[in-house]
Amino acid sequence: MSIEYCHNTLRSRSRFQPDGGHRCYLPKGHEGQCDEFPFLHHLERIAPKVAKKIVRDAIMTTGASWKSDDAGPNRIRRWAMLKSDEELASLGIRMPDLSPVIVAKLRDKAASYDSCMSVAQKLTALVYGMKHAPAAPPDVRAYLAALFGSFAPNSTKCQICLQTLDYQLFDQARRGRAEIETAHLNPRLHTAENTGFAHRACNIAQGNKTITEFYEWIATILERAGYSIVRPS
Amino acid sequence: MSIEYCHNTLRSRSRFQPDGGHRCYLPKGHEGQCDEFPFLHHLERIAPKVAKKIVRDAIMTTGASWKSDDAGPNRIRRWAMLKSDEELASLGIRMPDLSPVIVAKLRDKAASYDSCMSVAQKLTALVYGMKHAPAAPPDVRAYLAALFGSFAPNSTKCQICLQTLDYQLFDQARRGRAEIETAHLNPRLHTAENTGFAHRACNIAQGNKTITEFYEWIATILERAGYSIVRPS
Repeated sequence: MSIEYCHNTLRSRSRFQPDGGHRCYLPKGHEGQCDEFPFLHHLERIAPKVAKKIVRDAIMTTGASWKSDDAGPNRIRRWAMLKSDEELASLGIRMPDLSPVIVAKLRDKAASYDSCMSVAQKLTALVYGMKHAPAAPPDVRAYLAALFGSFAPNSTKCQICLQTLDYQLFDQARRGRAEIETAHLNPRLHTAENTGFAHRACNIAQGNKTITEFYEWIATILERAGYSIVRPS
Repeated sequence: MSIEYCHNTLRSRSRFQPDGGHRCYLPKGHEGQCDEFPFLHHLERIAPKVAKKIVRDAIMTTGASWKSDDAGPNRIRRWAMLKSDEELASLGIRMPDLSPVIVAKLRDKAASYDSCMSVAQKLTALVYGMKHAPAAPPDVRAYLAALFGSFAPNSTKCQICLQTLDYQLFDQARRGRAEIETAHLNPRLHTAENTGFAHRACNIAQGNKTITEFYEWIATILERAGYSIVRPS
C-alpha cells in the first residue's frame, strides 16, 4: 500500500535540510497548499503534546542526559547523522570533539528523511488504534489506511509485551517521562516496519537488544530460575 | 551465623550520625584500634574503587540525575531517611521543598545503620566469590565466613539472571556506569538477605519490580509472544 505523493519541495529554515529538502506529503494533484504533515493536523489540534511527540520521535535523535563537555547536541535531525564528519563540521557540529560513545549513539540513530516521514505516519496510525483514542477524521483515516490498511480500534499493542496500549497513558508521566515510548524492534533501524510504541518499562527492559534477542534473553533467565520454556516454532 | 561485635562508638564528622553513632565492627575483645570496616581494608588496598562502591551502595541512597530545583541531595546516608521531616530540617534537608517523586524515591531507600553495615559485609563476601576475584586474606575470609558461611570461588551470581559474575566487570563501564550494580530482590528492602550484585542490564530490566514480580512479568510477555511456560512448583 502506498500513496503517490506531490513531493514538492517546501521552504524550511532548518540548518539541517534533508537532501532534496522537506517535501509535500499530500497526494499528487492535491488542491490547496502543499503540506509536509497533512496526517497530523487533527492530533495537533486535539492533542498537541502527542502530535509533537510523534514528530520529535520520528525525525530527531533521542535526547540523552548529556551534560558533559564532550556531549553531543541533545537532539538533532536523524538524516543529519547520514552526513560525513566534514559536512557536519560545516554545519557547526564537530563530531571528532565528541566522545566515541556519544558518536556511536548519534550515528546509531541515522535515518533518511523518507524513513522518518514513514515513521511519523506509522506512529500516527498507531495512536488512532489505541484504546480510548480519539477517532480520526475521515480524510486522515483514509490517508493512513492507504498506507497501512484500515486499523481496528484497540488494535495498537505494546511492541514488546504485546498488550493493548491505552491512549490515556500519554497523559501519565513518572519523573517527567511519559509512560508510552516510541520503540524499535531492532534498536538500530528507524523504519516504519520496525518502529512502534511500547510501555516505558518494557522499552527500558529491552534496552539495546533486538526484540528477538530480548525474548531469548528473558527465556534463558527464566530457565535458570527454574521455569520450563517451549519456544514457538 | 554471626559475630559478637565490639560495637564501641567511633568518632565521626558526619552530619548524619546513626542513632548511637558509628560503631566498631571488630569482634568483642579485639586487640588494637576499633574499626568500622575491618573486612574492607584488603579491597581498599588492592581495589579502592570496588571498596568505595561497596560502602557507597551499602550506606548511601542511590544518586539520580537530579538537576532540577526541586531535586534532593544526590546521595545521603540511608539511615537519615528514617528521620522525620522535622529532624531533617534541623540538619539542613528540607523535605517539603522536594517534589513528591523525589521524596518517595529517597524514603524508599531508608535503612537502619545496622542493615547498611550488614549489606556492606554481604557485598564484600560476594565480591570475593566472583570469578577472577582476588583471594581474601585469611583474617577477612574468617570474618566473612563467620557471617555468611564459607563461600566457594566462582559462587557469586547475578541476582537476576543467575549467571556467574566476573570480577573484571567492575573495570568495564559504559557511559560512565559500571557493568555490575548493587541490586535488591525487593527494591524497597535494604537488608543483607535481599541485597546482592547484578548485571547493569539485568538490574535496569528488573526496574522497581521485586524479583518474583519480574520473573512473572517476563513469563507473561513470553506467553503472549507464543512461548509455552511451565512455572517452577
